[in-house]
Amino acid sequence: MVVVMSIAASREDIDRVATFIAEHDARAHISQGEERTIIGVIGYQHRVQREHLATLPGVEKVIPISKPFKLVSREFKKDNTIIPINGVKIGGGIPVVIAGPCSVESEKQILETAYMVKENGGHLLRGGAFKPRSSPYSFQGLGKQGLKFLQRAREETGLYIVTEVLEAMYVPLVAEYADVLQIGARNMQNYELLKSVGRIQKPVLLKRGMSATLTEFLMSAEYIMSEGNNQIILCERGIRTFVEYTRNTLDLNVVPAVKSISHLPILVDPSHGTGRRDLIEPLSLGALAVGADGLLIEVHPRPEEALSDADQTLGEAAFKRLMHLINHFTAWQENYQQQVAGTAFA
Amino acid sequence: MVVVMSIAASREDIDRVATFIAEHDARAHISQGEERTIIGVIGYQHRVQREHLATLPGVEKVIPISKPFKLVSREFKKDNTIIPINGVKIGGGIPVVIAGPCSVESEKQILETAYMVKENGGHLLRGGAFKPRSSPYSFQGLGKQGLKFLQRAREETGLYIVTEVLEAMYVPLVAEYADVLQIGARNMQNYELLKSVGRIQKPVLLKRGMSATLTEFLMSAEYIMSEGNNQIILCERGIRTFVEYTRNTLDLNVVPAVKSISHLPILVDPSHGTGRRDLIEPLSLGALAVGADGLLIEVHPRPEEALSDADQTLGEAAFKRLMHLINHFTAWQENYQQQVAGTAFA
Amino acid sequence: MVVVMSIAASREDIDRVATFIAEHDARAHISQGEERTIIGVIGYQHRVQREHLATLPGVEKVIPISKPFKLVSREFKKDNTIIPINGVKIGGGIPVVIAGPCSVESEKQILETAYMVKENGGHLLRGGAFKPRSSPYSFQGLGKQGLKFLQRAREETGLYIVTEVLEAMYVPLVAEYADVLQIGARNMQNYELLKSVGRIQKPVLLKRGMSATLTEFLMSAEYIMSEGNNQIILCERGIRTFVEYTRNTLDLNVVPAVKSISHLPILVDPSHGTGRRDLIEPLSLGALAVGADGLLIEVHPRPEEALSDADQTLGEAAFKRLMHLINHFTAWQENYQQQVAGTAFA
Amino acid sequence: MVVVMSIAASREDIDRVATFIAEHDARAHISQGEERTIIGVIGYQHRVQREHLATLPGVEKVIPISKPFKLVSREFKKDNTIIPINGVKIGGGIPVVIAGPCSVESEKQILETAYMVKENGGHLLRGGAFKPRSSPYSFQGLGKQGLKFLQRAREETGLYIVTEVLEAMYVPLVAEYADVLQIGARNMQNYELLKSVGRIQKPVLLKRGMSATLTEFLMSAEYIMSEGNNQIILCERGIRTFVEYTRNTLDLNVVPAVKSISHLPILVDPSHGTGRRDLIEPLSLGALAVGADGLLIEVHPRPEEALSDADQTLGEAAFKRLMHLINHFTAWQENYQQQVAGTAFA
Repeated sequence: MVVVMSIAASREDIDRVATFIAEHDARAHISQGEERTIIGVIGYQHRVQREHLATLPGVEKVIPISKPFKLVSREFKKDNTIIPINGVKIGGGIPVVIAGPCSVESEKQILETAYMVKENGGHLLRGGAFKPRSSPYSFQGLGKQGLKFLQRAREETGLYIVTEVLEAMYVPLVAEYADVLQIGARNMQNYELLKSVGRIQKPVLLKRGMSATLTEFLMSAEYIMSEGNNQIILCERGIRTFVEYTRNTLDLNVVPAVKSISHLPILVDPSHGTGRRDLIEPLSLGALAVGADGLLIEVHPRPEEALSDADQTLGEAAFKRLMHLINHFTAWQENYQQQVAGTAFA
Repeated sequence: MVVVMSIAASREDIDRVATFIAEHDARAHISQGEERTIIGVIGYQHRVQREHLATLPGVEKVIPISKPFKLVSREFKKDNTIIPINGVKIGGGIPVVIAGPCSVESEKQILETAYMVKENGGHLLRGGAFKPRSSPYSFQGLGKQGLKFLQRAREETGLYIVTEVLEAMYVPLVAEYADVLQIGARNMQNYELLKSVGRIQKPVLLKRGMSATLTEFLMSAEYIMSEGNNQIILCERGIRTFVEYTRNTLDLNVVPAVKSISHLPILVDPSHGTGRRDLIEPLSLGALAVGADGLLIEVHPRPEEALSDADQTLGEAAFKRLMHLINHFTAWQENYQQQVAGTAFA
Repeated sequence: MVVVMSIAASREDIDRVATFIAEHDARAHISQGEERTIIGVIGYQHRVQREHLATLPGVEKVIPISKPFKLVSREFKKDNTIIPINGVKIGGGIPVVIAGPCSVESEKQILETAYMVKENGGHLLRGGAFKPRSSPYSFQGLGKQGLKFLQRAREETGLYIVTEVLEAMYVPLVAEYADVLQIGARNMQNYELLKSVGRIQKPVLLKRGMSATLTEFLMSAEYIMSEGNNQIILCERGIRTFVEYTRNTLDLNVVPAVKSISHLPILVDPSHGTGRRDLIEPLSLGALAVGADGLLIEVHPRPEEALSDADQTLGEAAFKRLMHLINHFTAWQENYQQQVAGTAFA
Repeated sequence: MVVVMSIAASREDIDRVATFIAEHDARAHISQGEERTIIGVIGYQHRVQREHLATLPGVEKVIPISKPFKLVSREFKKDNTIIPINGVKIGGGIPVVIAGPCSVESEKQILETAYMVKENGGHLLRGGAFKPRSSPYSFQGLGKQGLKFLQRAREETGLYIVTEVLEAMYVPLVAEYADVLQIGARNMQNYELLKSVGRIQKPVLLKRGMSATLTEFLMSAEYIMSEGNNQIILCERGIRTFVEYTRNTLDLNVVPAVKSISHLPILVDPSHGTGRRDLIEPLSLGALAVGADGLLIEVHPRPEEALSDADQTLGEAAFKRLMHLINHFTAWQENYQQQVAGTAFA
């Protein structure tokens, strides 16, 4: 932490800051510049202190230096976290495809979709049983019945299940049926929910909030990990900007940015990220190109009948085409990495 | 709803859309332009339909016309909603000041603050017992003990209590102690929580999410109202933008924008909105000038010791000065309105 | 400037940074923390250096401490800059109202508007002769003929003229007719234009760019001032955010933020800022309440006939009503300040 | 254009709108819904009209249907525009790499860089002679001397030259030396400059403004094209959002979005887009994966000595590695497209 004193700060102001730091079990390192003084805080640093320092006379601003997260950082754990689920390794180098409908609508629909996902090479099945909808008048999901339909789809196809949990109190129920629990973007800072999924031992797919900074995103993962669950899969799903041609702005920059400071795997959801069916294929390839560990794709046997998100959902032909592209790209990428291994390009 | 067909749309495409509309119990009104055809949808319109229409061949886009909210709209209820709390009328013309610390820290601290609020003319006491903190390592509030301290402060000072509830399952507990239940910005789209507070009969203070559009903000209020609770107080607390000189960008435009389409009262929180102690006074006056029904202000007897948000908290001298300003301004405003009543300026 | 070394930085890395600083005529002040080392740079600091430092091995980030602007800062000049124009003092305590049509359309129209502005108490006349329009097919202004019509309006009414200049090469022409040269938001970083208006001795009204940070805004003013012209009037006119209910998001926070770090006056333009006629009155009052030195208001004798920006333009009745409100508020404000002068509330 | 009447609109209001439309040589098509009336405007539609319509009593909003641009739209010209420059075809399927330093600093530096670009397979040389810098105290470029150095680099290496022009009056000078004239992000809405480059017959590289919508971006291209120059290369270079881990947010969504509505080629600049050297490689691959026609890359023989943008500039090793990756990816992509040509995946 660095305390920047204002140009007008007096000797007294500087001493007061130094005393304050000493009283809080840290050491003050004073650098007297020509224009102004800056004071480094060395030793144990509790966040609250920063806000207090900012209230002292003569202080212009206080700049944090240390990252506020620990367990999710690459400094804490150097190697990539790999999460094995039913033979698939998320973060293990081969991109994983999680596909399925926005909502579970009926047993027939989810079974049909599950077979479609499986036959085209998808790795996990997603589908919403509890749906967060911005309108109280929209379809809210089938609830527990939806979970049962998902379970049936797993029994039939062998695909493992990813589904959202909306509330801390429903974590035990959803964990009974799901293989991966999804935390939606609107709940990224629902700390009770984060703590709840932190106490179970199943993988958690944590979606980035619509206006979450990278630090906030990782702090939410830190909440889960600090409770003991380290099977966390991050997921970028679009941020809110002034842009009007996509529903959200899918931020592919965040993928390598996460990789550089965290060991956790990160997926990309181009369906929600763009909200446009015609952009899903190019942005899927883009996501893998920047280093994403996999994709979340909305698919439906008959998108025009889907009860939610119809306009961003792929039908079978488009999904088959996408999987074909992904497989070819993945093969090229593996091949390229092997070829350059040990050369200056590695 | 208006369906805009692409320039290349065929006669068949147009017929398919018309048939689809008819099959869903609405009427299609076709306007053939020189370049393209647009189709009005008349009659019952369910949201899901819009997304389906968007998937039909030849459709360029579908533009919703009706607002998605009903109960919170001024078209539904013409007169302003006024919420009486212990003699204060929120939305009744006189701005209300809700003040208190970010967190309840101890009985002594909350009592001291409550007296400070009361003596300087504040109307309600706020204070957090359950705190949503972006770090799992930060102070998380005193919980139930904090609620008891707040109750004690009400008994001592007569000030009614506003405090946050973080989870649907805690609504009964918090409602036992609080006079107004606050939904924080991070929970604005926690629909389970919204439904829960919709089922009690106490006023709810709903804070706008950091990246919530006006429609989303009002849809969250609609969730509460659709469950039967119409005592909703909206609150602007800053949005997330590229701006770096304030923690958030307090959006005063939303105040008159809400007033024009909704009957609900709206407050402004300049403490969180700006995150800068020196901006609270000017933005408080600005908020009242644009028509806010009141203010949320963070105060503490000794801001430099506060366990959270110290740098945006007013001490007693600054709060006294603010209340003095607010009272003078309010008197002027009433006086002005009376003076122009019945003239062309009214 | 503070150099933050990464946790993994070696002794060599630290020495290399220190040497680099010394070679560039500054001094390195090394603070060795428990986790990492930070290095203060003391003495002469040129911006380019920062980017170089960032490229050295072991450097995590470089944090600038000094503000990049000098002449426009309050540290450089403590007292408010006051710009006298034809008896009006911009920044002198009494809010100034600059009103007029978006575009000069005809001699009749501008004369009619000028009388309307004058009779209702406006201080200066604004009107565009050269118009920056996002479409090449929209009305582009009358050009030099428009300037002549403005000159005629000044002769008739005595109101001084504010008008926009789009290009460095037109500065002499526009300066011949205008009393205040306006730099539009889209040109806030047109540095050639800034330098050109910096070389004349007429006041410049500099509008904030749609996505300009406060630092960028003040740096553009610094460009003008560094060429010798210190008659600069800043103007907030709305920023670009995700918000959809106003054309732009008028940012009233910037007004007191500017006042705290710069001596320059700042106006607010609620017409462009909101793009909504019904929000102009409340936001005008809000702007004055947060401390703006005046307002830019679009008015037209018959808004429904205006060739541009009709939907954000006030007609005479609304303008009269606004001026009445402003005058009453200003009187109250002066009165309040006198009353509290010398008390603890001052 | 569709006029949405408010629920409270009277029969008179509707008639007034219809009359207004008829008076402006268009036809009104009235659709009476159960709640409200909407009126389609058929025939010739001038933009100004929309704003006037919005001022009429009873009108809630006016929704534009037609796109405001014509010449740059895919509806106007179905086939991709291909711009041949010295044997390279921009938009012709093979990605082009334009590389060079942020600023031309000396003859030695630009020659050295040019050879580095050429030897590693770059197609064109970029370099700034006139630099738009946010500080008046930063290095502003070598001006005409810089242009001469660039000319020399072309003579030596045969690489064609891309360089920025800042002012309409400098267009002839820059066009004398440059093969492609660049319009920077800050000048995207400098309409005089756009018109000037529209009147020459050299390719123009138009960078997207930091807060430009897709429509605004294409309208700026329309300005150039409406003057007669149709050799326009668009370039995404990052937008301004709340995100803090990249200097800007590189928006890869815009690439396929442009492709769907315009025939113009589009490049991506990951150097400015991210401002982080370590993100250039992944985002370059991402850009090509989403369909970009090429890249702009900042390179320098010794980045740590560059006079501007040192922290986002690649040295030779990193550039060589990037070119190797790009070439492999391009070969795969071509191969894939040939393989699927004529299949269902095409």
